[in-house]
Amino acid sequence: MAIEHFADRVESRCAEVGAPLCVGIDPVYERLPREVLGGGPVSGSVKAREAVEAIERFVEGVLTSVAGHAACVKLQSACFERYLWLGVEAYHRLSHRARKLGLIVIGDAKRGDIDVSAAHYAAGCLGDSAFADLGSLPGPDALTINAYFGVDGIRPFMDVAAAQGKGLFALVRTSNPGGDAVQSLRLADGRTVAEAVARMIHELGSGPGYLGKGGYSLLGAVVGATKARDVAALRRLMPNQLFLVPGVGAQGATPEEVKACFNDDGGGALISASRSVIYAYEKARVADWRGAVEEAAARLNRQIAAALG
Amino acid sequence: MAIEHFADRVESRCAEVGAPLCVGIDPVYERLPREVLGGGPVSGSVKAREAVEAIERFVEGVLTSVAGHAACVKLQSACFERYLWLGVEAYHRLSHRARKLGLIVIGDAKRGDIDVSAAHYAAGCLGDSAFADLGSLPGPDALTINAYFGVDGIRPFMDVAAAQGKGLFALVRTSNPGGDAVQSLRLADGRTVAEAVARMIHELGSGPGYLGKGGYSLLGAVVGATKARDVAALRRLMPNQLFLVPGVGAQGATPEEVKACFNDDGGGALISASRSVIYAYEKARVADWRGAVEEAAARLNRQIAAALG
Repeated sequence: MAIEHFADRVESRCAEVGAPLCVGIDPVYERLPREVLGGGPVSGSVKAREAVEAIERFVEGVLTSVAGHAACVKLQSACFERYLWLGVEAYHRLSHRARKLGLIVIGDAKRGDIDVSAAHYAAGCLGDSAFADLGSLPGPDALTINAYFGVDGIRPFMDVAAAQGKGLFALVRTSNPGGDAVQSLRLADGRTVAEAVARMIHELGSGPGYLGKGGYSLLGAVVGATKARDVAALRRLMPNQLFLVPGVGAQGATPEEVKACFNDDGGGALISASRSVIYAYEKARVADWRGAVEEAAARLNRQIAAALG
Repeated sequence: MAIEHFADRVESRCAEVGAPLCVGIDPVYERLPREVLGGGPVSGSVKAREAVEAIERFVEGVLTSVAGHAACVKLQSACFERYLWLGVEAYHRLSHRARKLGLIVIGDAKRGDIDVSAAHYAAGCLGDSAFADLGSLPGPDALTINAYFGVDGIRPFMDVAAAQGKGLFALVRTSNPGGDAVQSLRLADGRTVAEAVARMIHELGSGPGYLGKGGYSLLGAVVGATKARDVAALRRLMPNQLFLVPGVGAQGATPEEVKACFNDDGGGALISASRSVIYAYEKARVADWRGAVEEAAARLNRQIAAALG
């Protein structure tokens, strides 16, 4: 059986849930609902195992709450690596669990290196695990990567993605204010650094074997929604890239503002919101935290669908 | 007791072993000496646990062999993450083991993110672990980080480094051929992207509280030895940065070629070689693999010391 292309899988899944919504899972112990703490302290000194178990209960609840509304989830690796190997184990288990719920999983680990090191990251952070003694976990569907190393830092990831029907999102324009210091530097030819990286990603991702039936590449791009004035130019430079668009919600961008991330046919982007969804219960009047998370995901789904017409 | 500054610790340690040598630990199962395999297969299908245990035996042997000749070791995280959480656990144990041998440990994990995610990486990949149930491991002495996010992606790492006497090496100029595609782009003001990043790192790292007694910052820079024509300019732009200089040995640069990485007083850089040292037994005629590794480290130490006069 032929492996389905990552971008085609994303397209089908977005159609299924009605909007290209990605929920970012960035769990921080101190913000978890009391109900999942399992007797552990609310703050202060907590054992790694207590924290990881609470986080796992929380994320499990978030996944089941958003599974009917989100096309994808983006798991923030840092929140798990915080708890060393115990956290890493939970990250892999939760990635597997999300996939079983029908969600497309983006591992947000922002890895980058060269040569054999990049190949090792690709195997460990993106590829299906060959290790039966660790449960033969399938790994996430996609991975965020850093493009500062150039093409030979990206190719080892593409090899794994192409062989296993997976995807990549290379950092082009990050959503933080400070990203401008490098990404907005003006080149002698008039482009910004981010535009030059975009061009590199576009050319690399358009190679033979990398495009799906819908015309999108397995190599996508991270383009922050908070950088609205740059988005249209980046869209033109990367017509075949799926954009992963963080910055909606807590970081300030609205669903309407992200319309420029999409191609004219309404495809080509995944809108990602994290804290405004997974911590929705902090501001909700409902007692059930899962219900608040589900309602936030459903509302954002409707808002994005409405913005796209 | 005041915490000793990272750069000052590096300087003392280099004086102790006679040269600013860093040995890169990039263990790949297929290249391990037969003696450490412990009955596991030479190649092909190996269980994660078998592979990690063999790697741990190997690295333990490498650490004890180089401890008298190397100032630092650089642990390549990718080679451990390849084995998911089991590998991550071994990575942390070996980092601790290396520190106990007197080696300064650089975690080569090339992490990067923004905001709370960067803070989580700083806590999990650089900071001393607060988790007694995971052995309260002290973490590495320093971490490699990616600077594409700009200043607000770097500050959370600097906060941990400053509080705990640790260091950072931001990627400025990587040693791979493809790095030019981004790092050598020419800006409108005549500088390269790498030079602009260097300026940012220099300014950020020169802030109050970041410089040690010897004048070097806790925020250093990765500058590939294979980019010899750029090194002198980067040295001028970052007089207070310790350079971590990969690319010597297997990647082609010689100890003599890296002289430009140093300041006039012979300080300011750590020369890193990986495969040419840790796999020295592959080309050696001695039967004892540890002896071959030790001899390679001792020889490189002498070559660097001689090059520096």
